[in-house]
Amino acid sequence: MGKAAKQAAFQLATTSTAKKNEALAIIADELEAKADVILAANAKDIAKGRESGMSEALLDRLLLNPERLQNIAGDVRNVIKLNDPIGSELESKVLENGLSLAKRRVPLGVVGVIYEARPNVTIDIAALCLKTGNASILRGGSETFFSNIELVKVIQSALEKAGLPAESVQYIDKPDRELVSQLLKLDEYVDMIIPRGGAGLHKMCKENSSIPVIIGGFGISHVFVDESADLEKSVQVVANAKLQRPSACNALDTLLVHERVAEPFLAMLAELLKDKITYVVESATCEKMPKVPNMRLAQDGDFDTEWLSYTLGVKSVASTAEAIEHMREHNASHSDAIMTNSIENAELFINSVDSAAVYVNASTRFTDGAQFGLGAEVAVSTQKLHARGPMGLEELTSYKWIGKANYLSRP
Amino acid sequence: MGKAAKQAAFQLATTSTAKKNEALAIIADELEAKADVILAANAKDIAKGRESGMSEALLDRLLLNPERLQNIAGDVRNVIKLNDPIGSELESKVLENGLSLAKRRVPLGVVGVIYEARPNVTIDIAALCLKTGNASILRGGSETFFSNIELVKVIQSALEKAGLPAESVQYIDKPDRELVSQLLKLDEYVDMIIPRGGAGLHKMCKENSSIPVIIGGFGISHVFVDESADLEKSVQVVANAKLQRPSACNALDTLLVHERVAEPFLAMLAELLKDKITYVVESATCEKMPKVPNMRLAQDGDFDTEWLSYTLGVKSVASTAEAIEHMREHNASHSDAIMTNSIENAELFINSVDSAAVYVNASTRFTDGAQFGLGAEVAVSTQKLHARGPMGLEELTSYKWIGKANYLSRP
Repeated sequence: MGKAAKQAAFQLATTSTAKKNEALAIIADELEAKADVILAANAKDIAKGRESGMSEALLDRLLLNPERLQNIAGDVRNVIKLNDPIGSELESKVLENGLSLAKRRVPLGVVGVIYEARPNVTIDIAALCLKTGNASILRGGSETFFSNIELVKVIQSALEKAGLPAESVQYIDKPDRELVSQLLKLDEYVDMIIPRGGAGLHKMCKENSSIPVIIGGFGISHVFVDESADLEKSVQVVANAKLQRPSACNALDTLLVHERVAEPFLAMLAELLKDKITYVVESATCEKMPKVPNMRLAQDGDFDTEWLSYTLGVKSVASTAEAIEHMREHNASHSDAIMTNSIENAELFINSVDSAAVYVNASTRFTDGAQFGLGAEVAVSTQKLHARGPMGLEELTSYKWIGKANYLSRP
Repeated sequence: MGKAAKQAAFQLATTSTAKKNEALAIIADELEAKADVILAANAKDIAKGRESGMSEALLDRLLLNPERLQNIAGDVRNVIKLNDPIGSELESKVLENGLSLAKRRVPLGVVGVIYEARPNVTIDIAALCLKTGNASILRGGSETFFSNIELVKVIQSALEKAGLPAESVQYIDKPDRELVSQLLKLDEYVDMIIPRGGAGLHKMCKENSSIPVIIGGFGISHVFVDESADLEKSVQVVANAKLQRPSACNALDTLLVHERVAEPFLAMLAELLKDKITYVVESATCEKMPKVPNMRLAQDGDFDTEWLSYTLGVKSVASTAEAIEHMREHNASHSDAIMTNSIENAELFINSVDSAAVYVNASTRFTDGAQFGLGAEVAVSTQKLHARGPMGLEELTSYKWIGKANYLSRP
């Protein structure tokens, strides 16, 4: 499988944008044309899930219906419209030694993606890899087994119709977990592993892979409300960061508030959020909290918890420096914001907080490929190598150096 | 050690270029002022090496003398002159959603470097990491134990004199190999591992590290002489690529030559190189070779061998496509060149050869940080994530996204 992918990657690397877009267009068309077969396969997954006692929320995540399938095809058509980054030159110069040198964007080669639940990820990743000339080896969750098999069949037949190798997109179609471990050791053929799933999957990949892994999606998100902040506007930002989509990785986990404004700010917040939120409050901060129905004292580990729900950690601090110190101790690495009117504190915060995205007077929810204007999002990286923050098409590329001379035998 | 490094990294991240340069200047001065102590420690390493029967070549690699120490101090002063990449903005835009977004270059954080033999690497890496605001954890070979201990003492006392944390540069000063395994698991504190040494070290790091590793320095280097090439000039390029420094990773390993020009070209080459080279020749190519003293038939594995010596593999091929096919099968990934006068073949070669650096009518020896105008070289990466080819200061950096708004509660 690795060898076949590498071979396909060689061909994809020199495939024109027009040809890649043609394949994507056929994939989109075929998704619609073969809707019946795909939905029938999906019904089998749903039946199996229901049998095994899967929750309604999870069942909904893996459900496909005509409308959702239409949306997936629409997403593929959107990828066609995106700029193909391959072939562009990042730098080019003539050196003193006479060499004319260019740094050209090229595909990574073969990308391995391990993901859970939602079947749209299969199409999504395959389309983004194809657009950037990468071959992909996919491994979805067992819950979506039947759906994924059909979706990959559609992709592979579309690739063949477009005259591209079917092995450009391959799927590990045996449930055996051992196969994932094997995939992680294929460093001779696979150039990057993207795990899309929970912390356990990321840890497993990080510890067992001999292939570079993109780690992401985790980290406690903080908003610090400084004493100089516009409190009325800040309360709106906090509400947005917490309530808009609590299950997202860029949703607010911990609210830090300057002690001089803690009382009025927390009163305004309680008034706005009413009973929508459970507050987990640091003990010294309690006396500054208004009476609210859902509140408990923070315990060890609470400020290291990514809530992914309607829970909010609250702590008052004496300064921007103390807020930064708290964030360093409690795993800030994804998205963090300061609300302030002080240039000095804003700069201190920006320079000192070591996260993928740092905001001044803006919501942590901005951390997103679409919001950042990247067109598509492959993952959100919280590591520092290769890519940090939302990863779009460019982050699925590498570069090569191209040197031309006139038979100079120097150096 | 990891915790202390992370703490130092936080401080270095916001240290001004002037302060970092001040520390580098003190390091250079102290290297000269404390020459006696350093040379005495080095003499102990040399004595120990001689006792254990180390070869003269290896002893020479680890020898320091006043002149070499002077050169090392000079290298540190050169790093002062290099542009500090930290803080520059790679991109900045105002998005439709009202967010003013910038992508700013920041240090990686903590860099772990594992290396062998030469004591100058200790100073070299420490200086490049310091310049880019990274803390470093170093682990040198046991052969240079005494020298490295003194060199790190000099660095740490210089850091303190400059008002920077001594923990900015730390050294693992126990011979225990288990400590290296522990370093490779410190993903909570260390952001990147650079192994500088043989293939065994790279493999060990790749397989055992939960921290991203930069793999590099390996790969078979090829020159393909096409039928349209200027043979007289090409023979000079081949001589340069093979003879200038055979032990370098960008030195030529395999010469591929178009069958239509194989006979005259190989005759010219034998004439120029005389008995300097041992030729390892593919069997069908033998009849095209002139009579030369040192020649043997190629066997299995010969074209997968990085010679690092005065040996040259030779094979004739029927086309540029066959040359590319050979290179794909035989691990081209570092530096490869085509000699040609055909634009079509040059483009085919550039686009199809999947190596860090690809050349047209130029020597593979160009792959080098200094030649590429990067000012310094940390390593030569042959992986595709993060950095490919010679890595300079910029490749020791990451970036963060900085978003500013006016309390917009969108998205």
